[in-house]
Amino acid sequence: EIVAAIEVELGQGPLSGRRVLVTSGPTHEPIDPVRYIANRSSGAQGTAVARALAALGAEVIFVTGPADVPPPLGMQVVKVETAQQMSDAVDAALPVDAGVFAAAVADWRVARASDKKLKKSRDGMPALEFAENPDILKRVSHMETGRPALVVGFAAETDNVVEHATAKRGRKGCDWIVANDVSPATGIMGGSENAVILISDSGAEEWPRMGKDAVAERLAARIADALTS
Amino acid sequence: EIVAAIEVELGQGPLSGRRVLVTSGPTHEPIDPVRYIANRSSGAQGTAVARALAALGAEVIFVTGPADVPPPLGMQVVKVETAQQMSDAVDAALPVDAGVFAAAVADWRVARASDKKLKKSRDGMPALEFAENPDILKRVSHMETGRPALVVGFAAETDNVVEHATAKRGRKGCDWIVANDVSPATGIMGGSENAVILISDSGAEEWPRMGKDAVAERLAARIADALTS
Repeated sequence: EIVAAIEVELGQGPLSGRRVLVTSGPTHEPIDPVRYIANRSSGAQGTAVARALAALGAEVIFVTGPADVPPPLGMQVVKVETAQQMSDAVDAALPVDAGVFAAAVADWRVARASDKKLKKSRDGMPALEFAENPDILKRVSHMETGRPALVVGFAAETDNVVEHATAKRGRKGCDWIVANDVSPATGIMGGSENAVILISDSGAEEWPRMGKDAVAERLAARIADALTS
Repeated sequence: EIVAAIEVELGQGPLSGRRVLVTSGPTHEPIDPVRYIANRSSGAQGTAVARALAALGAEVIFVTGPADVPPPLGMQVVKVETAQQMSDAVDAALPVDAGVFAAAVADWRVARASDKKLKKSRDGMPALEFAENPDILKRVSHMETGRPALVVGFAAETDNVVEHATAKRGRKGCDWIVANDVSPATGIMGGSENAVILISDSGAEEWPRMGKDAVAERLAARIADALTS
């Protein structure tokens, strides 16, 4: 960590002079002052990617939801809670040379979160109306001016991983999708290892299962290649 | 902590020989393998109460949801995630002399949690159907045989605290309600202090704002009085 920080200070590495945005962690979408909708992203993979990019000399802006793991040192950290706040933080961070969108952003929020705790009524569950959250990955991928040279999305799938992730790449318009299988049986969500498939315009490239730090280093090296070749 | 553990080993204190159940923390209710509904309970107050009861010599069974704070040492700890699991763990812990239900149990769960990640559809948010969770406090309070001599509930309110908590005591049939105001402005949820109102058949007794450990010690002393007088 300290070595990485020193290397960045010295301006070394293939990504020195490049500005990279990394989003990480879950978002929390409030229902009322005490309840919220969350997801199981620990932030471990996104944090490792940010650290690996910084180790290659990049200036990293790290936008994180309420993650289980502490944010990396040696970079600008922006802490947010909701998808809307994450979207705003991403806007504020642009322009960047590359954007790595590892956060598990909630697709929906509760349309009108209550400022009072909802009560059990005789009719049961209070009706919750949902509204669609901003699609950060799609919006950044489709920017007409100032689009990052490389936009990387993540896809956490539980079935038909390559098919779903390839479709997501087309739908979002990003350059790469880092896809993984987060079925409970894999132990990947919340664990220290990951098994990813990199989806690009050359197809699907399956990486062997390895530590999340090793996945991060390999991805950072690929990003450096793409930005500097 | 160590002193408390030693005292328990020595069987000292007004609650020695008494068996007390404490529930604590939030519950997480799955929507699908990656999403869930949660609440902001940190587990700090329930953990402090369990520790204070053990320090008075009680045998404590501590049933906790996924809390932010680590569980106390020197007692049996049962970790659960959902309200249904907490209900089962409470049943397994009975009979007890006193039950302190400090957990923030979700009133509802998603009726049919998906075993695959739900996809955004053209029609927007997938419809979520909710089912009512078991009401642990009400069920234990109404036990015809083997009811704990003292049943203590908690009420986290954001408005009309005494009115809501007094109504809750009547509805649940518990002996005491420890009520507090968890409006975001109070900083109590997730903070180190608490300002509680103890609701019993003698009415509402407002305690000054103090540390959560101090609240726990005062409550544990009151529980010891009630069980031994």
